[in-house]
Amino acid sequence: MTDEVLQGFRDRIDIVDERLMELLAERFEITKAVGSHKAATGLPAADPGREERQVERLHLLAERFGMDPEFSVKVFRLIVDEVIRHHERIAEATDSGQDQAP
Amino acid sequence: MTDEVLQGFRDRIDIVDERLMELLAERFEITKAVGSHKAATGLPAADPGREERQVERLHLLAERFGMDPEFSVKVFRLIVDEVIRHHERIAEATDSGQDQAP
Repeated sequence: MTDEVLQGFRDRIDIVDERLMELLAERFEITKAVGSHKAATGLPAADPGREERQVERLHLLAERFGMDPEFSVKVFRLIVDEVIRHHERIAEATDSGQDQAP
Repeated sequence: MTDEVLQGFRDRIDIVDERLMELLAERFEITKAVGSHKAATGLPAADPGREERQVERLHLLAERFGMDPEFSVKVFRLIVDEVIRHHERIAEATDSGQDQAP
């Protein structure tokens, strides 16, 4: 059951969701570039200090936008887990490439 | 350890993260309005058909933007869980208000 007001809200949510997906994809493009850059320059893959600063910043951003800081960290962890999955997949693809050309 | 290229990527990630938090906050504002509207008009709180259509749409959006559809659904579930928490908090606040003025 829907009315016009509800439909208006849902249309707005759908627009936000599309933009969210687009931004997440943009973010993964950047983290992929970070991974390649670190591999090429020999920088260490992990940087706990950076991650800590990101969590602090997300807490502040969540508060500024009236959200629960814990929620922002949950989103961050989900994204970081996916970034790790991407890096693992790239590492696997690189390994298979090396197997083919020893 | 950081170099200029890495710092450039990190600055871009920080901009994306701020925009993500802002969009999530905007989305919660809309879902709060949806909750109030449903309560005021007697529309049912849950709508499984709408949720199913949202998941389908997110799958398509994730594919369009080159992401794993499962990831988009994980993000959606996290958001929906938070929306439910918001609604529960509003319901609790309303209950306490009624207790004070029976």
